[in-house]
Amino acid sequence: MACTTNAFSLSLSSNPNTNFSPDSIPKLNKHLYVTFRSSASGELNLGRLALSRPSQPSRRVCANATQVMDQSVGEKSSAAPTIVEVDLGNRSYPIYIGSGLLHQHELLQKHVHGKKVLVVTNTTIAPLYLDKVVDALTRGNPNVSVENVILPDGEKHKNMETLMKVFDKAIESRLDRRCTFVALGGGVIGDMCGFAAASFLRGVNFIQIPTTVMAQVDSSVGGKTGINHPLGKNLIGAFYQPQCVLVDTDTLDTLPDRELASGLAEVIKYGLIRDAEFFEWQEENMEKLMARDPDALAYAIKRSCENKAEVVSLDEKESGLRATLNLGHTFGHAVETGLGYGEWLHGEAVAAGTVMAVDMSYRLGWIDSSIVKRVNDILLRAKLPTAPPETMTVEMFKSVMAVDKKVADGLLRLILLKGPLGNCVFTGEYDRKALDDTLAAFCKS
Amino acid sequence: MACTTNAFSLSLSSNPNTNFSPDSIPKLNKHLYVTFRSSASGELNLGRLALSRPSQPSRRVCANATQVMDQSVGEKSSAAPTIVEVDLGNRSYPIYIGSGLLHQHELLQKHVHGKKVLVVTNTTIAPLYLDKVVDALTRGNPNVSVENVILPDGEKHKNMETLMKVFDKAIESRLDRRCTFVALGGGVIGDMCGFAAASFLRGVNFIQIPTTVMAQVDSSVGGKTGINHPLGKNLIGAFYQPQCVLVDTDTLDTLPDRELASGLAEVIKYGLIRDAEFFEWQEENMEKLMARDPDALAYAIKRSCENKAEVVSLDEKESGLRATLNLGHTFGHAVETGLGYGEWLHGEAVAAGTVMAVDMSYRLGWIDSSIVKRVNDILLRAKLPTAPPETMTVEMFKSVMAVDKKVADGLLRLILLKGPLGNCVFTGEYDRKALDDTLAAFCKS
Repeated sequence: MACTTNAFSLSLSSNPNTNFSPDSIPKLNKHLYVTFRSSASGELNLGRLALSRPSQPSRRVCANATQVMDQSVGEKSSAAPTIVEVDLGNRSYPIYIGSGLLHQHELLQKHVHGKKVLVVTNTTIAPLYLDKVVDALTRGNPNVSVENVILPDGEKHKNMETLMKVFDKAIESRLDRRCTFVALGGGVIGDMCGFAAASFLRGVNFIQIPTTVMAQVDSSVGGKTGINHPLGKNLIGAFYQPQCVLVDTDTLDTLPDRELASGLAEVIKYGLIRDAEFFEWQEENMEKLMARDPDALAYAIKRSCENKAEVVSLDEKESGLRATLNLGHTFGHAVETGLGYGEWLHGEAVAAGTVMAVDMSYRLGWIDSSIVKRVNDILLRAKLPTAPPETMTVEMFKSVMAVDKKVADGLLRLILLKGPLGNCVFTGEYDRKALDDTLAAFCKS
Repeated sequence: MACTTNAFSLSLSSNPNTNFSPDSIPKLNKHLYVTFRSSASGELNLGRLALSRPSQPSRRVCANATQVMDQSVGEKSSAAPTIVEVDLGNRSYPIYIGSGLLHQHELLQKHVHGKKVLVVTNTTIAPLYLDKVVDALTRGNPNVSVENVILPDGEKHKNMETLMKVFDKAIESRLDRRCTFVALGGGVIGDMCGFAAASFLRGVNFIQIPTTVMAQVDSSVGGKTGINHPLGKNLIGAFYQPQCVLVDTDTLDTLPDRELASGLAEVIKYGLIRDAEFFEWQEENMEKLMARDPDALAYAIKRSCENKAEVVSLDEKESGLRATLNLGHTFGHAVETGLGYGEWLHGEAVAAGTVMAVDMSYRLGWIDSSIVKRVNDILLRAKLPTAPPETMTVEMFKSVMAVDKKVADGLLRLILLKGPLGNCVFTGEYDRKALDDTLAAFCKS
């Protein structure tokens, strides 16, 4: 599976443990994900090759997306959902995206197993959507009984103590292995409910109903679940895939502006690491997104899910490629942990972290200055931070980054941009001075 | 895959979700595991057919056992381990059984991933074997650093609070994804360390070094990990397989008599549910086992692991067949939870639970009285209880059994003996009166 092109050897896998396999290739619609190992430095570069399929229309759609109803910008939203498939063999599942999907009870009901459902939500979302979800689960389906557990809202509650409340409720309600957990809320609820579903009776079914941009474009897709430890984000958890993800874009109507912007940080990320065309679309449409134009939001969600689904399908357990989805997250997690969970929203921390990763990439000579400027500009237009909080010190960054999940045998690996827009590397081989210089540039002490 | 024999239809699977597949068949050495669905009652019966392979010797060895060194009774133990393979595709692993294996450092070291190891053990085992294990991990291997966490001993500490101590230590020690957790101890340590390994950074490698009969014959094999909830045993956990199981039979030298007997309850279980010949061997050798005859113990461990490995290979996630390993456990878990964790040892509760399951099987007319007597006799010879504690009430049994993991859509399914010795069923279709009568017979109120 390897050939040589100029100074690079081309390979489908980043290491012998990777999940990439030749079997994955035919599933891709238009792009082949590849790693380039430089023959000089041995560094791993990630990029994609356009596959030549002239018989296909030129609309860019990523792997495994079934367009039941194309909701590209300019077209009217409809009740028929867009479906993006996450292709994971016998653990594959659909992401339904559309307006009014919570009124289509058959969509949800066909993914419920057993007669008992536990809806896990929080104090903010419950008054807004819990009744609607219970109705969607039970309408015309009297055999199903629905319990709920309402958790306190916010990242600072994403811990073992809160998780235990889900187990308590599940056990008190005498749920058995043939039950279904439903996560109704943002990323914190999805991560906690997913980990609870993975661990309750050693695993029960679950469904994601994300209600924030952050959860709809990123955290609800791909099966990463977990909770925080006082010393680091998401250090305890499981890879555990849902039965389906149901994105009713109407739930964004009640989302605060700050939460909307937070989610856009992940949308911007997809453009930077692998989809330059999407980034350019965002540059043209950022004001529409900030003004909650429904079609623009629907398109951004769909395209983000397609990118996420493609990466997850190729590398479910993060052997290599999937790590690139963490652009800005290593710096960002340090901000979240250092400040105290919940002070900054996840996307706000990721935005600042992205600026730091881009700054470091530039210091390494891996990107030109125009990319640095474009990243700063688009984040400012999305009303996102472009620097960490002033209270963060170099030492705070270093101590949290030392326990990052991407450390391997003591070496911190980072996602950095390299080459033209839309290309990145996941590597531990970089000049340590560039990291020190970036930290010094963004911290007062 | 189905044929009809008299009143039964013969099928390889218990339900459409089962893991049994035709591919499994050629892996079996001498027996074919089958389910019989009665054409009259629809009930699922589990048993095995002897495969006719006249070219093979008559020694009974179960699936996938590689006899590097045959340690049948009467032969001298040797440094070369017996190896029993657990066949789970790319998650397959060996069980090494033998005397002095902790002195064979290469055995352990070849299963260590990364440069950092965390040994999870308890206050009883640490003074006895921790140094020996650290030596086995590091001898001739200076690149590996070993941390340890010493937990309080006993079932009552198998909870979230204790589990968090493992995470705390792992994070403080800056362990990364390329580390290995080692469980050194009995079933409680193995279950907790395994669940910690499954959840730390969403999954790291782990190795089981069981030091009790209970762990060596049962709990260390098959990947069931987890912790207790105040309302029920093992309700929170994961299916997560180790890299290897290393059974150094010398560690039994320090095992208290009560713990030895507790482990024998599971040995007896294998005979009752699927291996009549092994049960008969136990009837002949129980005094040797109780006197810790090394060869008798080694044989009982090997044969138990072969039975366990065969069942787990066929049904890793407990779609059906694997549930039969829980004979006596539903009643037994009620005793453990009802009395308070740790009052009775797990095997003591299982012994009493087995007597209750056998009593109920007899009331249903599914077995003859000779089996009832033989079960009572062998448990008494193993100095195990043959009735639950007097403080247990019918209501205590019913409330704990209602949250058993084998409840499906509200129906409690039980493992009951049916037919000649060595045959059992896993079923929710039984006369409720028999269950009530059994509970009434064993409880004062």
